[in-house]
Amino acid sequence: MYAVPIAQLIEEFAKMPGVGKRTAERLAYYVLKLSKEEVAVFAQTMMQAKEKITFCPICQCLTDAIPCELCSDSKRDQSVICVVEKPKDVIKIEKTREFKGTYHVLHGVISPMDGIGPEDIRLKELLARIADGSVREVIMATNPNLEGETTAMYVAKMLKPFNIKVTRLAHGIPVGGDLEYADEVTLTRALEGRHEIV
Amino acid sequence: MYAVPIAQLIEEFAKMPGVGKRTAERLAYYVLKLSKEEVAVFAQTMMQAKEKITFCPICQCLTDAIPCELCSDSKRDQSVICVVEKPKDVIKIEKTREFKGTYHVLHGVISPMDGIGPEDIRLKELLARIADGSVREVIMATNPNLEGETTAMYVAKMLKPFNIKVTRLAHGIPVGGDLEYADEVTLTRALEGRHEIV
Repeated sequence: MYAVPIAQLIEEFAKMPGVGKRTAERLAYYVLKLSKEEVAVFAQTMMQAKEKITFCPICQCLTDAIPCELCSDSKRDQSVICVVEKPKDVIKIEKTREFKGTYHVLHGVISPMDGIGPEDIRLKELLARIADGSVREVIMATNPNLEGETTAMYVAKMLKPFNIKVTRLAHGIPVGGDLEYADEVTLTRALEGRHEIV
Repeated sequence: MYAVPIAQLIEEFAKMPGVGKRTAERLAYYVLKLSKEEVAVFAQTMMQAKEKITFCPICQCLTDAIPCELCSDSKRDQSVICVVEKPKDVIKIEKTREFKGTYHVLHGVISPMDGIGPEDIRLKELLARIADGSVREVIMATNPNLEGETTAMYVAKMLKPFNIKVTRLAHGIPVGGDLEYADEVTLTRALEGRHEIV
């Protein structure tokens, strides 16, 4: 029913997470209503972000600098690593202004139900950072649900031989919830009350 | 906090209708997770849609053919014009398979509150189609709200000198509602029960 270029555009938008057919149509019409220049800027921004943004070779976060701003910041405590599931979690914790260490993004959690094992997330890269002996604490800030807890326990066991303190964010965060939706105050409490994994 | 290219991408998404900051972040991360090729296709689709899609010089709908598929279809009754507010409404009415005439997209409605007068919507173009005397009926399918009714009345008065039947969709559509959200059956009833504007 739609002209082919419109149908294709709707299809591209409909591939996005949380975007249904009707929303995709609305977004496509939004693009068609923009000026040619505005569409070019939008498309360009998309390509540039994809081109310029890579994973930090140290913490695995998304960055346009190598290493990333946080990893190359000499004012930050490089001996403390906060391990999170996804890049957005770094932004969320940074907003509390309570944490002065560095991060490590796993890009996932161990989830046998989904067929995701320890080798599918960036644990090798975490281990590599531990190897030189300069790290004294690893804070496991994975989500307080089954997969997050499993991953935290796995890392605690993995790092046992290195004699490193492995801590877990305090349960200020509602159990079963998602880190992404916690407010700054709750997250700050969770950081303060972190405890060692036995 | 975000690397500049990511922040820019989030900003572009946040400009879209109904897309808040959090959704924009999610969409930006979706793009970053695509392969370089997939992002290129997405960006290309956007630019191509904008480049290829223009207004049909007759009915003013969005099309990649000039005139559009519907206006150039000899099987359709060119003497009946269904007038709608926006391009999406054409798709919606086409889905009922009940209408075999042509369309005219106004790209808006008369709305003095928003400073939109008759000269701001495509009424001149409608008048031009009427001029040759081949049109016998104009169905006003603007929404059944204040602006839609005002526009329908305005068109009825405007076409009075031409001795053309000007009809209105029956109120199968809930008053105060939006054409876009009506189901096919309701829309079909509305088409069948259309009545002449006095």
